[in-house]
Amino acid sequence: MTAPIAPIAVSLGDPAGIGPEVVAKCWDHRSAFNLPVFVAVGDGRSLAAVWDGPIVTIDDPRDADSAFDVGLPLLHIAAPSADIPGQPSVAGAHCSLDSLELAVGLARSGSASAVATGPVSKQQLYAIGFTHPGQTEFVAERCGVAPENVAMMLAGPTLRTVPVTTHLPLALVPERLTAALIEARGRATMRGLQRNFGIAEPRLAVAGLNPHAGEGGSLGTEEQELITPAIEALRAEGWQVAGPLPADTMFHEAARSRYDAALCMYHDQALIPLKALHFDEGVNITLGLPLVRTAPDHGTAFDIAGDDRADPRAMGAAIRMAAQCAAYRALSG
Amino acid sequence: MTAPIAPIAVSLGDPAGIGPEVVAKCWDHRSAFNLPVFVAVGDGRSLAAVWDGPIVTIDDPRDADSAFDVGLPLLHIAAPSADIPGQPSVAGAHCSLDSLELAVGLARSGSASAVATGPVSKQQLYAIGFTHPGQTEFVAERCGVAPENVAMMLAGPTLRTVPVTTHLPLALVPERLTAALIEARGRATMRGLQRNFGIAEPRLAVAGLNPHAGEGGSLGTEEQELITPAIEALRAEGWQVAGPLPADTMFHEAARSRYDAALCMYHDQALIPLKALHFDEGVNITLGLPLVRTAPDHGTAFDIAGDDRADPRAMGAAIRMAAQCAAYRALSG
Repeated sequence: MTAPIAPIAVSLGDPAGIGPEVVAKCWDHRSAFNLPVFVAVGDGRSLAAVWDGPIVTIDDPRDADSAFDVGLPLLHIAAPSADIPGQPSVAGAHCSLDSLELAVGLARSGSASAVATGPVSKQQLYAIGFTHPGQTEFVAERCGVAPENVAMMLAGPTLRTVPVTTHLPLALVPERLTAALIEARGRATMRGLQRNFGIAEPRLAVAGLNPHAGEGGSLGTEEQELITPAIEALRAEGWQVAGPLPADTMFHEAARSRYDAALCMYHDQALIPLKALHFDEGVNITLGLPLVRTAPDHGTAFDIAGDDRADPRAMGAAIRMAAQCAAYRALSG
Repeated sequence: MTAPIAPIAVSLGDPAGIGPEVVAKCWDHRSAFNLPVFVAVGDGRSLAAVWDGPIVTIDDPRDADSAFDVGLPLLHIAAPSADIPGQPSVAGAHCSLDSLELAVGLARSGSASAVATGPVSKQQLYAIGFTHPGQTEFVAERCGVAPENVAMMLAGPTLRTVPVTTHLPLALVPERLTAALIEARGRATMRGLQRNFGIAEPRLAVAGLNPHAGEGGSLGTEEQELITPAIEALRAEGWQVAGPLPADTMFHEAARSRYDAALCMYHDQALIPLKALHFDEGVNITLGLPLVRTAPDHGTAFDIAGDDRADPRAMGAAIRMAAQCAAYRALSG
């Protein structure tokens, strides 16, 4: 008899956001969504506030497997006070961080096979002194990986994108871009396609920064000075890399079929096409970590929290992809 | 008996690009594409080099109507030498400018009801001393309209976008954005939706510049300092305007149904979603001019010029939309 595979640890995110609701709905739809066993990590009161289903509080992730048929397994983290849906608080922000930290710890120790994270409010986290641009960088630090060596991939059914820079004011993007950073993100992307998606010979398409990829230098020189050298360095390592490509003509159907991931220079260059095409199904996966971490590609949506209107499909896709990537990793050793 | 409506003047663009081929193919498909009478403006040799169909050279646009059933009506502009498809030249760049100028002149005088322009090479034009960022600004100047009062709209079946800044290196976008420019483009967009599309009470969605529309100021302040004041000024004039919205979540299907046009802060923010969704059907229409000017949303594609592989659908959509917009204008007086 084989031991059960460790569950996916799912942090609930901000207790006042839609995270608890979409995680609970994923348990409701566990069969239709084809989900593996998972355990919620967070304040159980935030689940009960928005959901009438059964919760099975457990102390050990190994109990998730047997609990999963009875109710939503929960590793409870008590916030100092319970949040009201749609009304974020400092206590809730702390709770969302504690949940994330515990979920990551479970995956690092092998007690969980992967982590899927619910949405947090960066605005709330900044208010309590959080200094990371986002959850991705926080998880990287907790895993002891330099932030430039991880890559935030957004994955939908027909498109995967990776932004080189992420949560930065647009005005800072050109000065923060370096050939070394583009190269590091490109390498993390290619290794991630191999390890997490089982693509033996991945193909990368690299976007330009400027309109028309700089139009030969007349609309900007970052393509010539930063992006092309990074592409050449990656090719010298044997990777299949195309670009720099004009960003506006690389996301239509025929163009998408020519690569496994698009490396983008800034947040919206990566997120606009992904969400235009796959709004309800986009999954954020962090590449370059010693563990698998995914997240739904949406925010806390405080404005609809508690209204029973949140769509759980992206959270479901994140949990499902976490399990798939963990399986690919287990196969490749 | 009513006089025939004046034809659409269609400039061929760079004679070495795919412009001549797609215009000729539009005549081939004039019935399937449901196209109005149009007259090609450019060097007839660039048509003959890539197309075996009949050409009827005319001197007066009024002859286009009777010629159109016999062959492709052409107002011939002889370049000093004939270009080879795929091999752009200085002479060809001059010819593309002359064609554009004549087509615009015909529309200004009423000899054409609208202009559709084939793709030019900005790189070639810069080489001959062209100082405008693109054809849009050139046409605006020829019409005596200040460039900030025109707007370049990209229109597809389910999305219309307007970039506030256009052909600029990305690094210059934040410093070139002003509340006055955003306001002027927004106003041109709204008036254009009324005049050219017959939408009596248009709805505008305005994108933020930064990720998550600045996330309350922590990811950039242009939303608070420039975009919100411009939105408030437009609202004060009675326009329906939403925003600033996070750019990545405003282009999925449900979001698109809430507005008639999206005002974007830079080229790729407007072009990425448009081309991801409507690559073969995107039309560029210049709003704010005393005439209707459209263009296909693609470039010269020198790499495939002469291969009989160019897709004429976008050029067909541009000619069709030119006629539709001209009809709306005629209705509204």
